[in-house]
Amino acid sequence: MLYYLFEYLENTYQLPGASLFQFITFRASLAVILSLFIATVYGKKIIRFLQKKQLGETIRDLGLEGQKEKAGTPTMGGIIIILSTVIPVLLFAKLDNIYVILLLVTTLWMGTIGFIDDYIKKFKNDKGGLAGRYKVVGQVGLGIIVGATMFFHPDITVKREKLNPANGTELITQNSAKEFYPEEKTLLTTIPFVKENEFNYERLISWAGDDYKKYAWLIFIPIVIFIITAVSNGANLTDGIDGLAAGTSAIIAITLAIFAWVSGNVIFSDYLNIMYIPNTGEMTIFITAFTGALIGFLWYNAYPAQVFMGDTGSLTIGGLIAVIAIAIRKEWLIPILCGVFLMENLSVVMQVSWFKYTKKKFGEGRRIFRMSPLHHHYQIKGFHESKIVTRFWIVGIFLAILTIVTLKIR
Amino acid sequence: MLYYLFEYLENTYQLPGASLFQFITFRASLAVILSLFIATVYGKKIIRFLQKKQLGETIRDLGLEGQKEKAGTPTMGGIIIILSTVIPVLLFAKLDNIYVILLLVTTLWMGTIGFIDDYIKKFKNDKGGLAGRYKVVGQVGLGIIVGATMFFHPDITVKREKLNPANGTELITQNSAKEFYPEEKTLLTTIPFVKENEFNYERLISWAGDDYKKYAWLIFIPIVIFIITAVSNGANLTDGIDGLAAGTSAIIAITLAIFAWVSGNVIFSDYLNIMYIPNTGEMTIFITAFTGALIGFLWYNAYPAQVFMGDTGSLTIGGLIAVIAIAIRKEWLIPILCGVFLMENLSVVMQVSWFKYTKKKFGEGRRIFRMSPLHHHYQIKGFHESKIVTRFWIVGIFLAILTIVTLKIR
Repeated sequence: MLYYLFEYLENTYQLPGASLFQFITFRASLAVILSLFIATVYGKKIIRFLQKKQLGETIRDLGLEGQKEKAGTPTMGGIIIILSTVIPVLLFAKLDNIYVILLLVTTLWMGTIGFIDDYIKKFKNDKGGLAGRYKVVGQVGLGIIVGATMFFHPDITVKREKLNPANGTELITQNSAKEFYPEEKTLLTTIPFVKENEFNYERLISWAGDDYKKYAWLIFIPIVIFIITAVSNGANLTDGIDGLAAGTSAIIAITLAIFAWVSGNVIFSDYLNIMYIPNTGEMTIFITAFTGALIGFLWYNAYPAQVFMGDTGSLTIGGLIAVIAIAIRKEWLIPILCGVFLMENLSVVMQVSWFKYTKKKFGEGRRIFRMSPLHHHYQIKGFHESKIVTRFWIVGIFLAILTIVTLKIR
Repeated sequence: MLYYLFEYLENTYQLPGASLFQFITFRASLAVILSLFIATVYGKKIIRFLQKKQLGETIRDLGLEGQKEKAGTPTMGGIIIILSTVIPVLLFAKLDNIYVILLLVTTLWMGTIGFIDDYIKKFKNDKGGLAGRYKVVGQVGLGIIVGATMFFHPDITVKREKLNPANGTELITQNSAKEFYPEEKTLLTTIPFVKENEFNYERLISWAGDDYKKYAWLIFIPIVIFIITAVSNGANLTDGIDGLAAGTSAIIAITLAIFAWVSGNVIFSDYLNIMYIPNTGEMTIFITAFTGALIGFLWYNAYPAQVFMGDTGSLTIGGLIAVIAIAIRKEWLIPILCGVFLMENLSVVMQVSWFKYTKKKFGEGRRIFRMSPLHHHYQIKGFHESKIVTRFWIVGIFLAILTIVTLKIR
């Protein structure tokens, strides 16, 4: 909202300094500072409030060392993340930007589903929480909203450069004139390791006749639903030990912030050979606020945690990461960038399938990991919780670097 | 070295893919991946070697909880950081770049001093280590080398743009022609919060007559010595609990890598209004390798630590951070960017001075902190070591953001 205020002040009174508000980098910096501030300073109050309302999460007894100490730690800390993200965005971002709107809707939608789930677990004393069925309905609903918006909204476009043969080296001069095709409504996305790094979802339905582009949403929306469901479940599973989900997600979010900023900038996207997507720059402000919120949340969530994010946090985080990646058309980088989530997800799938298979075959279930998700496996092997978390973060950093590198190799 | 190989392959055989080696971003990515790899994979072997040679550091008994467990942990882990930095640099950087040479000299110089210090402490059973006098001689020596190189070496210059009045907004077009003054040998530096953000050290000696610019090194070298001494002592003091110095330094290093890359890039430095300094881009490869080394070192150094960096590590880290900041002419941002080091430094100074003052005045020494450096204060207050470290990291991230923001405000 302040964006409009300062725009007005500048236009009407030429207020010195007001023009700084035009800069995405400046507003993004303010957003991250404010979100860090809200999460760390007001976080304490919110935690005390949650503690009073709940009497700590009733923890699933896994027989792990140190686990008992955790009884009494309040959950639903995701509220801290949501508030510290949304408030700076409302203040500093352009609120008529379609991408910003999409991310705000995602936050509230997933936050609400997560909250209901946490609430049922806590106050109805129903460990199952929201029945899986309803959770899926929520994720599918969001997928439809996001997929349809991406397909139908007129502001969501891609602008492609008319390539000239001299292009492709870092040595381009500043003065080389760029020519662009007009903005296109298209389902173009980025795929690593292939020529030009590009793929168009519309091609998947090209068998449907001359008008096939009109029906591309039939393919696209299910893909969006799948991505949102997979990532939010991944974040949900990863949220098992202190600071793991928040830290890993912060690393992912920083990487996405860089992508969003570059994608929305006509000079940098060209220079770094990344798809230019008009209007996505504004998302940077949302994502940096989100990153600040996650890091600020770690202030209390790091080992030994004073608060857990709950599904309120993990579903929101997962949903946001998925939607951001889709919006900047980097969703096929998720398996690398969110590799930690994937690992955790796979460890559960492998464990459960192998157990079922061996039970059927040998009459007794066997295990691949001592326990799944993966982080519990290492805990049982005797690694300190704090060590596991730091190492998973390092893996996350490594994967983030790898994600950036994939865009260079083609 | 590979840079020259691929340059040759490309020029002679037009090997496909070899041209990627021209990109700083590409080589920087390889450097960070390799340094992470060396630190995490070979780190274990180096730790086992150190453990065999030493029988763990004899720890100063502070009566802190959990401290006893640390006896037996080997020190001199800084060797891991040095190797994981230097090897990727030798492979991927241009080795005739003056800045790269300067950083390699810094690494070996400070690494050697730190190593001698650790060696004396460990094997001569002399807790004092290298007498403070010799340590200072080492730091002063490096200051002279760096200061003189910065002043006298012909490749170290600044290139200033001829400003046009339309400049200064983010809306510049790609085609606007930039005009530059020729490269200047000057002692220009960046100072936050002032107009144009620039300051020239030569002005400090302008009273010396017409030829004053010739004698500017008389002022500049002492400043460089002061900065190197201050930062390396700061890093040294910060290295008190598991993962603190390595993590904080990694955050600082990433920030410096961004600055170095932008400063050396004619388009981006102009776009972001940061001083353009020819040849500094190549430093990015060194700094990313350094960052990877620090993060990789954390794999073993994070709570509960399996290795300590020792003075071999902390003096090298401090020296490198100081020299990088000086090279990209951002040394006056150090008090903000390295605020964690500063805090630790100040806590010791305050504690000691107040103790001496009160002892003189009241006959008994009083304390401001329960113990200094600051991290021990929180430890005694009952915070978990791991929590203190994560929170100091978060403060470090906050300060890094603040540092970036200062460049926008003028």
